[in-house]
Amino acid sequence: MNQRAFHITRADLGLFTDLYELTMAQTYFEWGMFAPATFYLFFRSYPPNRGYMVCAGLEDVLDFLEGVSFGDGSREYLRSTGMFTGDFLDFLGGLQFNGSVRALPEGRIFFANEPVLEVTAPMIEAQLVETLIINRLNFQSLQATKAARCVGAARGRAVSDFGARRAPGVDSALTMARSGFISGFQSTSNVMAARRYGIPPAGTMAHSMITAFPTELEAFRAYAAAFPQRTILLLDTYDTVEGAHNAAQVGKEMEAQGHRLAGVRLDSGDYLDLSRQVRRILDEADLDYVRIVASGGIDEYEIERLVGEGAPIDIFGVGTRVTTSADAPYCDMSYKLTCYDGRPVMKLSPDKVSPPGAKQVYRLRDSEGQFERDVVALLDENLPGGEALLETVMDGGRKTGPCPSLAEMGERFHQDFERLGDHFKQLHNPPHYPVTFSSALTRLTGEVQGQILENLDFSGD
Amino acid sequence: MNQRAFHITRADLGLFTDLYELTMAQTYFEWGMFAPATFYLFFRSYPPNRGYMVCAGLEDVLDFLEGVSFGDGSREYLRSTGMFTGDFLDFLGGLQFNGSVRALPEGRIFFANEPVLEVTAPMIEAQLVETLIINRLNFQSLQATKAARCVGAARGRAVSDFGARRAPGVDSALTMARSGFISGFQSTSNVMAARRYGIPPAGTMAHSMITAFPTELEAFRAYAAAFPQRTILLLDTYDTVEGAHNAAQVGKEMEAQGHRLAGVRLDSGDYLDLSRQVRRILDEADLDYVRIVASGGIDEYEIERLVGEGAPIDIFGVGTRVTTSADAPYCDMSYKLTCYDGRPVMKLSPDKVSPPGAKQVYRLRDSEGQFERDVVALLDENLPGGEALLETVMDGGRKTGPCPSLAEMGERFHQDFERLGDHFKQLHNPPHYPVTFSSALTRLTGEVQGQILENLDFSGD
Repeated sequence: MNQRAFHITRADLGLFTDLYELTMAQTYFEWGMFAPATFYLFFRSYPPNRGYMVCAGLEDVLDFLEGVSFGDGSREYLRSTGMFTGDFLDFLGGLQFNGSVRALPEGRIFFANEPVLEVTAPMIEAQLVETLIINRLNFQSLQATKAARCVGAARGRAVSDFGARRAPGVDSALTMARSGFISGFQSTSNVMAARRYGIPPAGTMAHSMITAFPTELEAFRAYAAAFPQRTILLLDTYDTVEGAHNAAQVGKEMEAQGHRLAGVRLDSGDYLDLSRQVRRILDEADLDYVRIVASGGIDEYEIERLVGEGAPIDIFGVGTRVTTSADAPYCDMSYKLTCYDGRPVMKLSPDKVSPPGAKQVYRLRDSEGQFERDVVALLDENLPGGEALLETVMDGGRKTGPCPSLAEMGERFHQDFERLGDHFKQLHNPPHYPVTFSSALTRLTGEVQGQILENLDFSGD
Repeated sequence: MNQRAFHITRADLGLFTDLYELTMAQTYFEWGMFAPATFYLFFRSYPPNRGYMVCAGLEDVLDFLEGVSFGDGSREYLRSTGMFTGDFLDFLGGLQFNGSVRALPEGRIFFANEPVLEVTAPMIEAQLVETLIINRLNFQSLQATKAARCVGAARGRAVSDFGARRAPGVDSALTMARSGFISGFQSTSNVMAARRYGIPPAGTMAHSMITAFPTELEAFRAYAAAFPQRTILLLDTYDTVEGAHNAAQVGKEMEAQGHRLAGVRLDSGDYLDLSRQVRRILDEADLDYVRIVASGGIDEYEIERLVGEGAPIDIFGVGTRVTTSADAPYCDMSYKLTCYDGRPVMKLSPDKVSPPGAKQVYRLRDSEGQFERDVVALLDENLPGGEALLETVMDGGRKTGPCPSLAEMGERFHQDFERLGDHFKQLHNPPHYPVTFSSALTRLTGEVQGQILENLDFSGD
């Protein structure tokens, strides 16, 4: 059997779950607990310096839910653990996801303590899919949010994903390209992602090529000869300023052959100072059309600084720090049961209360169309004046329609981002966007909490 | 076509590369640069609070190198970009990796500025595989290192991987289980990883099950009835102390039926105080054999604190912060060309110098067998008295032998960890382990640097 961590077949996919999901499922099975359950996905606390999140990863989740199964090999493995009964394993063999899903479309902005996705399905189906649902939406939304911060800081300059090599895995490299494109990145260096998602591929050249040739100038000329339409020359292998002079020379040679040097790339050193020196060298050679790319340790904070100081950089290539969401590598998304068999439920763990019942989120805008506040309400309420954010995307285990294109998701992001106040987009310590609970939800929360506390017997102490 | 980010076929795998690898490859192709090249993988700077790294991910890399190809669909995509020539695409169609690889075995400890892996292959083959090699070794080594820190801090208490849901992707969830097991974790909650890698699966129960039943006591009893051999009861859904009393009651009921309650789990609150209270409640019910599991926001720092304060916790379930390597979510591993066609090469970018030539690492020990220092030397040197760390693991594109088992990797880790001085294992600001370059490597570095500087023409300024 091939053991590569990034090779996963459809028949295996059911096993991407925590063991306790399966042991709980067997318990439900034995107790005949097949009634519908509603779970919702949300996050409680903003990751550091975050004032909003961008939704990404839903398409993965819906593909998974349509295809999840426990194939023969998976059931054989479970049988070998000695933990599960034959009846339960037979039941798993026929299991499909037949539930419904309401969710925030990808590209939309969301906030703490509001549902991003809600699953209603027979208890076992809804329970078993927890691990993968969180896995797909939590990190992709972090990546989309990190990308949005870069795009915001770049103020119109282009941003490209260069993160494949230091992404935390192969699939997170692919999702970075996708999530980044949703949030406004222009391209990706990741060829597999470019093909898979229809994102423009982008690239320059590496130090290895420069050093493989006898001199930098020879390497530049060779590359320009091979790719006269899209040559971007890397300047810092030996000395960035000297590299800029060599690039200018090759740029003039390309002009003589009817071509144009597309760009040069800085990859180390003081980007502000070097970009100014390089711009001057290029301009003095009448190469004002040659664009400057900066890469190497760049994130939204560095982009903001460089743009603020007027660095003549046209394209930011972002890699390691963005694809890992380095300053905020996790978000605390949870998937909580809020209703079982028609009964609203909740837990009371300290600082981890999750209000009961199926829900909807309404977004209210001010007179200028800007986002004003969100209200989390019970599903059967109707709050006039607000936009209902969660859409039914799956019914009876089938998607309700084709998945939107990445361009559509990008347009949604763009519209939401425009309508979100600038203070929520601050890179440092943004304020919290107002999210409140409707009076009906607050009332129900109090009622359920009261019932639980009544049932608890504290006399045992 | 299925677009799930975690579904990748072998025929596609060549495309998991950065675009510039392919454009450089076409340039090499056009210039007839098919001579052998040597690249090496290393990191320059320790991630925060790290004094060593644990190697993981090599098996993935070797599987990839044996299987990498550019299938028809991949080449069709490349053709559609309009960037590549027909001759080059035909060449790609027949491309395999035929090179050799020398590498540090998985589980071994390594340090900054020393080679972890060295590839020697025809230039194009060696260049195209850069992106995936870094991707697989960089993050898996970070995960293995994070796990080693947890295991060290736990001082003999068990640590289990609970990270699947908030891992940065599906494959990083699988690699966390695998890397953690190499570094001494006892089990994983991730069923797919448990099956794939033969790791013991572990699990407890979730709040959702407690809330789905009318009362906590009923949920506990139902689970105990379903899994009398391996029941671990979750205490904090409503109130941890009350939960402990309910667990003790169920524990006594299990005893009456000839079973033993395996454990209880804390998932929120003050773990030190609660673990003491819960231990007392269990002990007073003569349930001293029931183990206490703690989970929820736990990492090596929290484990060190709890163990140091004597919290009666037997098993730490680590999730989000460990699987993301949250305090150090990236390492700066690079893959640099050091030799082309017999000529040693290097780059001179500020703070990014990489010494030229094919290398070996020698590890010297003191009289008690403890690691004393490492020496990076040229491959053709022979440093007496040191252990040569890099082994030939691939030759002519084929693995030189079967991959070691995870148990063997774990044993290697255990031996290295024992021989590494305690100060390098400090969780905060450990000193740097001494790594020096041999005099021959230092001399060659100076020579190559001198030649490059001679060739550079600074008069252009």
